[in-house]
Amino acid sequence: MVMIFKGFVRFVCQFSTMLSKNDIKLIRSLEQVKFRKKHAQFVAEGSKVINELIGSGLSCRKIFTTNETLFDSSIDVQKINAKALNQLSFLSHPKDALALFDLPARSSIDLNQIKQDFALACDCIQDPGNLGTILRIADWFGIKQVICSEDTADVYNPKVVQSTMGSIGRVNVVYVNLTGWIEENKAEFPIMVAALGGDNIYESSLPSSGLIVLGNEARGVSKEIVSNATRRLLIPGTGKAESLNVAVSAGILCAEVRRPKSSPQT
Amino acid sequence: MVMIFKGFVRFVCQFSTMLSKNDIKLIRSLEQVKFRKKHAQFVAEGSKVINELIGSGLSCRKIFTTNETLFDSSIDVQKINAKALNQLSFLSHPKDALALFDLPARSSIDLNQIKQDFALACDCIQDPGNLGTILRIADWFGIKQVICSEDTADVYNPKVVQSTMGSIGRVNVVYVNLTGWIEENKAEFPIMVAALGGDNIYESSLPSSGLIVLGNEARGVSKEIVSNATRRLLIPGTGKAESLNVAVSAGILCAEVRRPKSSPQT
Repeated sequence: MVMIFKGFVRFVCQFSTMLSKNDIKLIRSLEQVKFRKKHAQFVAEGSKVINELIGSGLSCRKIFTTNETLFDSSIDVQKINAKALNQLSFLSHPKDALALFDLPARSSIDLNQIKQDFALACDCIQDPGNLGTILRIADWFGIKQVICSEDTADVYNPKVVQSTMGSIGRVNVVYVNLTGWIEENKAEFPIMVAALGGDNIYESSLPSSGLIVLGNEARGVSKEIVSNATRRLLIPGTGKAESLNVAVSAGILCAEVRRPKSSPQT
Repeated sequence: MVMIFKGFVRFVCQFSTMLSKNDIKLIRSLEQVKFRKKHAQFVAEGSKVINELIGSGLSCRKIFTTNETLFDSSIDVQKINAKALNQLSFLSHPKDALALFDLPARSSIDLNQIKQDFALACDCIQDPGNLGTILRIADWFGIKQVICSEDTADVYNPKVVQSTMGSIGRVNVVYVNLTGWIEENKAEFPIMVAALGGDNIYESSLPSSGLIVLGNEARGVSKEIVSNATRRLLIPGTGKAESLNVAVSAGILCAEVRRPKSSPQT
């Protein structure tokens, strides 16, 4: 028991020489959406992601890193050791840095943009990794807006930020009452939903713009939204899996709508 | 301190009335590949996945569940409470059951099958969620074999089992020295790799069978394998993301090779 207590004291002392209690408290609190809103900050990890976010114009408050040479000297950078970084990190395999960013101001939906190009909508996507991967897909395919229902995971959740790999700074993410917003705007652009029992994507002529709605991991797109959809689309499978992962479906649908009209058949 | 100690004793007592120490020790050990091999068992969670695996012919040794009515009475089922199940679970959101399955015998590669249809290969896929999602994609598109390099995540890792959603029982997964195996068999079938700088998939005529190789999350497919590839394929993006998630790429490539030759252009 004494040994454990001594070990604990040694651990706490070593730890507190590296980081202030306030920094630790603040960073740990940012795992929760209420504290991200309260402090108007979020966490990003890894020098690659951090530098991409800075490059996208997001405001970085402070970086804790094991290697300060990875960052521009104009930023407030604190060198810490790997042990201290591991304690701060939200990742199971911590990277080389952790940064605090200012939460960007809430943005609004650009309706004209959806009339001219595609946008994605997330109807209650709950897994942070799925949401992050969907943002990365949007960014890959040059899709500028992702419109999320209020019950979708928060985009500034540390796990979402990580799985976007920096795309979070380049894609406009807006939270709305998705069902109500679609009901109001359904006459403005085509609304496509990924749904079992829909039209085979290989046999469908797809519109050249509109909203692609992706549904909850277990329940799919809600009935209300499906009833307002212009097109229900099926990615046909010949195997026995019950469904595809939602981010994988998003990738396949984006690749399909981005297929040039003149491309040869494979 | 006394309060904490009393709480701890109460917790241990409550816990041990539900589960034997041996069961707890065994299940916790199965997070590690060496103990999965030693005990020749693996863990699956959630009644849906468990019943799918049983339906695929895998041998289930025992189920711990909060609701024994979800399972066939021929299986050894132990009812436990939600708290005990939470303690056993490897998931951040535990399901309604956790089961022990016998590790299936090592299977071999069916070369003839790759000459007639597609197979996937995983070159050092390290994220368990990615590997599981790739198996689910294979199962969706009716692809029967996934050939993994020895440094790919273990398919019986609890996180992989979970993200396959039951597909693990329907897709044959084989571990080999992938580089060597491809070197030996490259004359037998087309070898396609997803690679930046490859041929645009929209403008390519794809073979009707062969191996699709998916690469490591950070480094992509190894140089040795790329040098043996018949085709390098690019999923073109117009945005700024540096890459797509590997499971998303796998989904897009599988959807592409499964596109009927006669399908209309979108």
